[in-house]
Amino acid sequence: MNGADALIETLVANEVTACFANPGTSEMQFVAALDRAPAMRPVLCLFEGVATGAADGYGRMAGKPACTLLHLGPGYGNGLANLHNARRAFTPVVNVVGDHATYHRQYDAPLNSDIPTIVGPNSLWVKSADSPDTVSALAAEAVTASYGPPGGPVSLILPADSAWLETRNGVVKADVPVRAAAAGTTIEAVAKRVREAAKPVILLGAQATSAEGLAQAARLAAAGVRVLADTFIARQPRGAGVFQPGRMQYFGEAALADLAGTDLMVFVGTVTPVAFFAYPGRPSVLVPEGCETTTLTTRSEDSVAGLAALADALGAPASGPAQPFKVADGAPTGPLTPQACGLSVARHLPEGAIICDDSVTSGGGVAVPCSTARPHDVLALTGGAIGIGGPLAIGAAVAAPGRKVLSLNGDGSAMYTVQSLWTMAREQLDVTVVVFANHSYRILNIEMGRTGSGDPGPSASKLLDLGDPKIDWVSVAKGMGVPAVRCETAEEFDAAFARAMAEPGPKFIEAAI
Amino acid sequence: MNGADALIETLVANEVTACFANPGTSEMQFVAALDRAPAMRPVLCLFEGVATGAADGYGRMAGKPACTLLHLGPGYGNGLANLHNARRAFTPVVNVVGDHATYHRQYDAPLNSDIPTIVGPNSLWVKSADSPDTVSALAAEAVTASYGPPGGPVSLILPADSAWLETRNGVVKADVPVRAAAAGTTIEAVAKRVREAAKPVILLGAQATSAEGLAQAARLAAAGVRVLADTFIARQPRGAGVFQPGRMQYFGEAALADLAGTDLMVFVGTVTPVAFFAYPGRPSVLVPEGCETTTLTTRSEDSVAGLAALADALGAPASGPAQPFKVADGAPTGPLTPQACGLSVARHLPEGAIICDDSVTSGGGVAVPCSTARPHDVLALTGGAIGIGGPLAIGAAVAAPGRKVLSLNGDGSAMYTVQSLWTMAREQLDVTVVVFANHSYRILNIEMGRTGSGDPGPSASKLLDLGDPKIDWVSVAKGMGVPAVRCETAEEFDAAFARAMAEPGPKFIEAAI
Repeated sequence: MNGADALIETLVANEVTACFANPGTSEMQFVAALDRAPAMRPVLCLFEGVATGAADGYGRMAGKPACTLLHLGPGYGNGLANLHNARRAFTPVVNVVGDHATYHRQYDAPLNSDIPTIVGPNSLWVKSADSPDTVSALAAEAVTASYGPPGGPVSLILPADSAWLETRNGVVKADVPVRAAAAGTTIEAVAKRVREAAKPVILLGAQATSAEGLAQAARLAAAGVRVLADTFIARQPRGAGVFQPGRMQYFGEAALADLAGTDLMVFVGTVTPVAFFAYPGRPSVLVPEGCETTTLTTRSEDSVAGLAALADALGAPASGPAQPFKVADGAPTGPLTPQACGLSVARHLPEGAIICDDSVTSGGGVAVPCSTARPHDVLALTGGAIGIGGPLAIGAAVAAPGRKVLSLNGDGSAMYTVQSLWTMAREQLDVTVVVFANHSYRILNIEMGRTGSGDPGPSASKLLDLGDPKIDWVSVAKGMGVPAVRCETAEEFDAAFARAMAEPGPKFIEAAI
Repeated sequence: MNGADALIETLVANEVTACFANPGTSEMQFVAALDRAPAMRPVLCLFEGVATGAADGYGRMAGKPACTLLHLGPGYGNGLANLHNARRAFTPVVNVVGDHATYHRQYDAPLNSDIPTIVGPNSLWVKSADSPDTVSALAAEAVTASYGPPGGPVSLILPADSAWLETRNGVVKADVPVRAAAAGTTIEAVAKRVREAAKPVILLGAQATSAEGLAQAARLAAAGVRVLADTFIARQPRGAGVFQPGRMQYFGEAALADLAGTDLMVFVGTVTPVAFFAYPGRPSVLVPEGCETTTLTTRSEDSVAGLAALADALGAPASGPAQPFKVADGAPTGPLTPQACGLSVARHLPEGAIICDDSVTSGGGVAVPCSTARPHDVLALTGGAIGIGGPLAIGAAVAAPGRKVLSLNGDGSAMYTVQSLWTMAREQLDVTVVVFANHSYRILNIEMGRTGSGDPGPSASKLLDLGDPKIDWVSVAKGMGVPAVRCETAEEFDAAFARAMAEPGPKFIEAAI
């Protein structure tokens, strides 16, 4: 076998069985080797940002990495923004970045670039397999590194000759690292401080917001401790039967108002909360003055066990509160708003659905009513780089067949990776895409005032407005092979959304809000 | 004034008057300052890869940099691939990369990233303006650095507080560096070797392929010396009245066959030619065995003066050959092929047109007949990162109003930066976009065989084929606001292309080849 075979066989042996790809010439051996390894599912993406965001969605749902196949430095560059998001979601992803043959690098051919430097900032681990005999060992090392904990993207650089040359070094099994438990003394110390605090808050992040983590956090809530979660969570179970913590507010001053009087913040799988952006004269660190902070578990440690131990130490009951099931009886009526859309989503969302949320200013309208919908998972935008709603949905649908996937997007966000629609059609994925078409970078109109920049004049308005011309989203989606409708009233949206939930396969709804 | 004002005023004072932008919160002060500087033209791009490719097209045509406005590391990442191309085109580009406020960086907020590292590999110059008082001096330094020579992208990092705080440091003028002349002794030595060689070849790159460079190279051709140009040229005048050098072949073995017997290669504004990719058992360096090489001028030196001096030293005539004007009399007929499209393009292309070429396997069909069309410029894909045809056209159209711009694209390439269509509609740019829809990564089908990977089986075919579903390009283009037609015969294409050349404004033609 050649190096490409060794790589794919090692990946498959370590349960990496999905490959989101946009290959070029230097990746042809990997592509050919896929034919000899049918356990690896290749998914073509027409832009690398789709591939990397899909790998993120896959990893969040599968709890194991997918691989990407990217074409040298520029191919990785196209996928960089969604790998930034994956890094912020702690999602295991194994990037396979093709490179020139080792002996060809010195000639600085047109596609040559400094791949290790470009991939470095968003990779937990980077190595180049500079001979075919190193490929399988490094592939196993890459898989192990991607798990962290906490996990994240890693990058294995694969020179073309390491792929095409023969090797006798076959499959290597990867270790999957285990999270360390927090020390008993830490648990005791934190419990003591929580008992002594007048108004403590437990702040959950990452693994602490898993189903198991939330079940333990609910016990703390039952014991009278306020429980919040980070503003943007990689994967959070929500809806009926699930404990729903409060949410750290997005804007700093709102967060501090919400935390007023809090005298202790305990971090569980997360760190000190900070403002998403700085603004003149507004706070960066979102801890009230005089409030003390402590850490129960780091992001690397076992937050579920930590929460359970803390609940035990505080004498909390064996279980805590859960959301009721409660959705609107009838369809919403009148003008279409994000709130009206949200009522319909909550009514029709099937159990086990996966919401991939890149809806920016429209998202709140859905999140509120869905808090009492049928149980589902929400995958949020963790790194602030818009254009992940479609790609995440692709990955989630590949990872979780049989579960309905709902991709919620602002129109500005959706345009970033609009190519994702084609892959949904190609793979006939069970994804419903909703684009909230307000024909504006609405968030920036809000942010402009907050940064003290004043009201937009003619030049500034040209950079915030998407309405000239208005994008005909139905035409774009149909052009990419996805059945599409435009809804202009709440009644139309409710009917279209109900149909989309009832039928399998990709669907597109333009919500003309 | 604040730092953002100082930046924009300094850019404008140094003739940087176009800004291709996709801003976020950290760039709001820059956006607001645009309203106070009407000489700077803001052009909104719905994805950063469009913005950076447009800046490349602008710089190639204007001979001076545009600026981009990008949102932190992920925003730059989205634009990275086309900046790789700009680096390979030696195009001056000033990237303004917004960052968190200086004091906010330490908190590692979600959008925080290692911007200097990410931008480094594709920037000739990187600095961060960490106080408002440094902004204008660094902006001037950035403009100077972007000119090289040879030029390229530079990156000025602008923290939000450096933009919003007041400064008294106003406009700073930038030096524009001048290319050094090659030494007289070099000219004499090269002339001697050319005289003594049995079969010398002059290879032109970069500045040597400018109109002035080609006029001098034509004199060498008239003196009996064979003249070739690099395979991919940032900007090359072509058509009637222009000297057309031969072209280095793309595939290495074809290049070496073409050069057989050559005993001297003289590089003018370029370096030793190498194969685009390595293949098992095929050459990397495209210089025939036993052939000597020498350099007349480096990419940094004055190649036009160097060519003129060499022509003088060789006693060449005052002028050399130029292409005749010769196009097909009637419209082509029958099935639509790239060759048929090329005949129509040659017939109808107006004088002064600008062809932006990202058409990969279909491009040759157009290049051959256009070699005797009305005089025009061709901007090629210099760095191999596909997805530049639309963005280049935006930049060229903004830089050269009054000239018709033709964007030629493979369907795989066009999908990469499909968002460029919207900006063409928004700005009503005089661009005709042609997409050659073969519903395949055709080049990869060719490359797969060359890399010795064998014939594609089911998995490999899934990664090379774009035909399931077939993209309805007309629907996509109309959805983005560009009038569009599909042509399935040579007659239809000829008529549609003639109309597009006769009418101003954006047009889209799907060539169903």
